Amino acid sequence: MELGLIGLGRMGGNMATRLRQAGHKVVGYDFNAEATAKLTQEGSVGVNSLEDLVKNLQAPRAIWIMVPNGKPVDDTIQKLLPLISKGDILIDGGNSNYKESQRRHAELKPQGIEYVDVGTSGGVWGLKEGYSLMIGGDEEPVKKLTPIFEALAPSPTTGWGHVGPSGSGHFTKMVHNGIEYGMMQAFAEGFAIMKAKTELDLDVAQVAEIWRVGSVVRSWLLDLTAEALKHNPDLEGMEAYVKDSGEGRWTVMEAIDLNVSAPIITESLIRRLRSREENNYTDRVLSIMRNAFGGHAIKKA
Amino acid sequence: MELGLIGLGRMGGNMATRLRQAGHKVVGYDFNAEATAKLTQEGSVGVNSLEDLVKNLQAPRAIWIMVPNGKPVDDTIQKLLPLISKGDILIDGGNSNYKESQRRHAELKPQGIEYVDVGTSGGVWGLKEGYSLMIGGDEEPVKKLTPIFEALAPSPTTGWGHVGPSGSGHFTKMVHNGIEYGMMQAFAEGFAIMKAKTELDLDVAQVAEIWRVGSVVRSWLLDLTAEALKHNPDLEGMEAYVKDSGEGRWTVMEAIDLNVSAPIITESLIRRLRSREENNYTDRVLSIMRNAFGGHAIKKA
Repeated sequence: MELGLIGLGRMGGNMATRLRQAGHKVVGYDFNAEATAKLTQEGSVGVNSLEDLVKNLQAPRAIWIMVPNGKPVDDTIQKLLPLISKGDILIDGGNSNYKESQRRHAELKPQGIEYVDVGTSGGVWGLKEGYSLMIGGDEEPVKKLTPIFEALAPSPTTGWGHVGPSGSGHFTKMVHNGIEYGMMQAFAEGFAIMKAKTELDLDVAQVAEIWRVGSVVRSWLLDLTAEALKHNPDLEGMEAYVKDSGEGRWTVMEAIDLNVSAPIITESLIRRLRSREENNYTDRVLSIMRNAFGGHAIKKA
Repeated sequence: MELGLIGLGRMGGNMATRLRQAGHKVVGYDFNAEATAKLTQEGSVGVNSLEDLVKNLQAPRAIWIMVPNGKPVDDTIQKLLPLISKGDILIDGGNSNYKESQRRHAELKPQGIEYVDVGTSGGVWGLKEGYSLMIGGDEEPVKKLTPIFEALAPSPTTGWGHVGPSGSGHFTKMVHNGIEYGMMQAFAEGFAIMKAKTELDLDVAQVAEIWRVGSVVRSWLLDLTAEALKHNPDLEGMEAYVKDSGEGRWTVMEAIDLNVSAPIITESLIRRLRSREENNYTDRVLSIMRNAFGGHAIKKA
């Protein structure tokens, strides 16, 4: 089938390739003209305006939005609205907050525009291995998009599913990312403990490689970690500085709203915040307290 | 080659089968006569005393001890000592504390007995998929045991390795289990958040199944969880009560000794302790405080 695709970055670009390889017609737009030119070279249709994107698709259209969450999604929708027609389907495949997806769905439904939220996992490996797709929205548009999901997923019958009403796709993806934070942190701590045990002189890359097969912790994250440790076991040339892109904090807030105790996911987020605090105020407060009540020395800057 | 095997429980019994299938002669002992009879039926040599075990093996012997950690391991070694000869190798394949393995190695070395510690992961699936083996000890005995490791591991070249000196095998396995605690807890919290979001009516078994392929959290633990949730998505008929068998607490203590902050592994252990506290004292103390300063009602038993 035909699919419009807005946003040809690392994720969107690879998705276009995977869809084309499966025989779908992709009309792709990006504000970066190089990305659209590349798409055309690869055999899809690269366009340089949303007007051209819509013109190149037959109604009823399906347009997949793959842009950073928040304002870019709303802006894209507002620009599309005068161009598209009743019965068209918009799909948000990015990491939007599920509450925003529910709001957009509610706003667009009365205008006759369908809105589907798709949590998309798989990163840069998705082109080769397929994307894990968690889909939220109304029955009918999801059904219409089935050929697209079957092509993007690892196989037509695995790694994707319609999980519930509007917002469910992004909610599920949000929790997926929360779990991911926890798994990553567990591995990171374990490798740090091994690295600190200098008397045993463990080769962390060797241990990671051993664990990849047959162990209880075998996982894709371990596969990637083992590969990276092989090249740089001492993790030299980098700062212990970890960013986050939102889903972890939303998961924590959601857990609190739901009165669910989720300490590991919460602490995994907190650790990322901590990694970005240099000479933090908290620890300096602790130091003045220890100094005040016990005369313990303060480490000077 | 020939291997003596002490302890034919869930792990030991399956290991004997895997070794026999690879063409090794296994002489197995268990205090449970049914287990040794079963071993004989399967084509290995089941014996009912340690004397018979030693007699049925040609020196220099290799004897794998697969019994619960702590006293059972020491008792087994003490009973074996009068029976075995210089040059024999004892292997502890259980979940011993690495410090105890180092002590045993140090005690046995002057007596001419080699001691190798092997962290063995894979659980009941090891028979089919092979065991992940983390091996600590001296070069020579580890080298002699190579055919055994190659047979137990997922393949002769994957999932096993000599990771360092005495104690390294059990140290590495201890950290492996600490990581396992964290991964398990991360998944558990994520599924709990989804379950609590009743307005979306998510099918957690479906979501787990989607994630198994293509997602960032794909892992063996998720495979097992997906299978279990399929049969009982509401986890009915069971208590929220989680045991631990020691490696998690050792990892936490080790992290503290090494001045490594490992909050996720630590909290994952704490959560298991909490799961076993009924109407716990801590929360009752919190309640009397809230009552005392704010007049907040105490929930009566």
